[in-house]
Amino acid sequence: MPQLKNDRYIRALFKQDVDKTPVWMMRQAGRYLPEYKTTREKAGDFMSLCRSADLACEVTLQPLHRFKLDAAILFSDILTIPDAMGLGLYFTQDHGPRFERPISCKKDVDNLITPDPEGELQYVMNAVRTIRRELKNEVPLIGFSGSPWTLATYMVEAGTSKSFTKIKKMAFCEPQILHSLLDKLADTVINYLNAQIEAGAQSVMIFDTWGGVLSSRDYNDFSLQYMTKILDSLHRSFAGKKIPVTLFTKNGNQWLEQIADTGCDCIGLDWTIDIATAKMRVGSRVALQGNMDPSMLYASPERIKQEVATILEGFGNGNGHVFNLGHGIHLDVPPENAKVFVDAVHDLSVKYHK
Amino acid sequence: MPQLKNDRYIRALFKQDVDKTPVWMMRQAGRYLPEYKTTREKAGDFMSLCRSADLACEVTLQPLHRFKLDAAILFSDILTIPDAMGLGLYFTQDHGPRFERPISCKKDVDNLITPDPEGELQYVMNAVRTIRRELKNEVPLIGFSGSPWTLATYMVEAGTSKSFTKIKKMAFCEPQILHSLLDKLADTVINYLNAQIEAGAQSVMIFDTWGGVLSSRDYNDFSLQYMTKILDSLHRSFAGKKIPVTLFTKNGNQWLEQIADTGCDCIGLDWTIDIATAKMRVGSRVALQGNMDPSMLYASPERIKQEVATILEGFGNGNGHVFNLGHGIHLDVPPENAKVFVDAVHDLSVKYHK
Repeated sequence: MPQLKNDRYIRALFKQDVDKTPVWMMRQAGRYLPEYKTTREKAGDFMSLCRSADLACEVTLQPLHRFKLDAAILFSDILTIPDAMGLGLYFTQDHGPRFERPISCKKDVDNLITPDPEGELQYVMNAVRTIRRELKNEVPLIGFSGSPWTLATYMVEAGTSKSFTKIKKMAFCEPQILHSLLDKLADTVINYLNAQIEAGAQSVMIFDTWGGVLSSRDYNDFSLQYMTKILDSLHRSFAGKKIPVTLFTKNGNQWLEQIADTGCDCIGLDWTIDIATAKMRVGSRVALQGNMDPSMLYASPERIKQEVATILEGFGNGNGHVFNLGHGIHLDVPPENAKVFVDAVHDLSVKYHK
Repeated sequence: MPQLKNDRYIRALFKQDVDKTPVWMMRQAGRYLPEYKTTREKAGDFMSLCRSADLACEVTLQPLHRFKLDAAILFSDILTIPDAMGLGLYFTQDHGPRFERPISCKKDVDNLITPDPEGELQYVMNAVRTIRRELKNEVPLIGFSGSPWTLATYMVEAGTSKSFTKIKKMAFCEPQILHSLLDKLADTVINYLNAQIEAGAQSVMIFDTWGGVLSSRDYNDFSLQYMTKILDSLHRSFAGKKIPVTLFTKNGNQWLEQIADTGCDCIGLDWTIDIATAKMRVGSRVALQGNMDPSMLYASPERIKQEVATILEGFGNGNGHVFNLGHGIHLDVPPENAKVFVDAVHDLSVKYHK
């Protein structure tokens, strides 16, 4: 295996020494970049962009040409899995992603296809391989998946939701159906992420975007349990390299201790928690990723730098911090502000790594 | 002042002995009740229902005729204040409440009317007086307001929002404008709630529905600070009776200690936190209200009872628990299930009050 030219991101996830705090941005390849919009137009619709290894690679690399990011993340969608399982993904102008055949009963779950990562989902693995080739070991490539619970919300609600009433009805009225769905999803995510690692992903992240809509008990039963199952079966090293894993539950700050118990290497933090508090609670056990409010990128360069400084000071000295936004970058952020942010993390963090 | 026939709710808020745990439901007067829909049709549009003291009274009392609730809550809307300040509230089919004249600059804030609670907002006070008369001291009447931050989100975003980018731009780029808006709102809420108390509200609640979208620092600066200001100026007793105050920040579980520091009598909990944890953290200082997932009301009577039992056991022995849902009741919940819930709280809580 060739060495990474910049391995700050991987080292930070393993709480090893770095010269400055590594930084990347959730949704760094996306609509706030004019060059992304150009490629998107070339592709036609969004899923065609995901399905083309060359175009997915192109947009994955775009933010790295602009900013000194310490990691690339595979350009894809969390709904590739439900689509490959046979639900018929499509996108609407007003309501975002929808499914033609959502899950509402036991038969629907029983009928789900178990997708082959190098079959129905091979386009994702092809994108990983292409991106790795084009990255030329400059920075590591992050692979990712949605968590079983988060994927299930889309599959049962037939798309995005505000109050998650359909899936909660299932959780409270017919929990065995939901557990059977979550179990199938966990197996699929294991295969999917392991295939991404085999194709070249050097770290993986699980996005539990909707775990925070559950009560503490239900979070354990319906989300964390299945992420733990995934962690137990993931390649934690491949081709002689250790593969760090990050779990991110949005609005999951009250469960950091339980998330650390899963055996993940890093916990992704949304912006609502004070990072000093998070470090005090679990920082001896796992690395932390985060956590600037993405809306701070609307502010002036001075204000952005001030916020970066506050978060760096909150984490303080010591290893195990990957700087990021607390959620995806907003689509109307000026790219110049993202540059200010990335540079500020590097410039202002040197003093914490002496 | 005549004595309340059922004062469980007030006693629980002051952590006094009760025979069983009091219970009410957020949005208990609402669309899940067929009789509500009938009155709503009679009124025409939603604001006409709010503006008619007789009809607002009618819907306020409807759930009390069905269920053995321990409190009534004024039927009104949190957007009465921005409307009275001159923003021009209207309702759309698809996107809920909107404002004709949202706030975007200093001039907009300077031009805001300071509403007179017995002038522009007299219809609310008339509703309070009518409801108190019709309640005949059976149970206490809860008055309420949105928090300054929550009201400001609607006023700046021009309605509901998903990512709150407009108000965050203001918070991060021109914080002095937002602070001046929040300060005006705090003064208005003080007048509004004090007028409700003078008109007959026996307890008040402040809903900070959107405080949870802020970072810890920003929550203090933009939300909690102004709720503290309100608490410092509210009538804490009136006509010889103490008036308990409840603060509810949805997704605010990480800040319970700071919320207790405001001097409120009770903290409203959403459903995501384990109530035993909340009690351990702040239960010696304040009462707690909550916290069943509103979606649990879709489940079977047995499952609802089981969940009520779990939450009662979580709070355990001792005073200071008002049972409620962790958020408003969903509009498609069968009213029979709400009855199961209310009765279960009373039946199953007796053993904790011996």
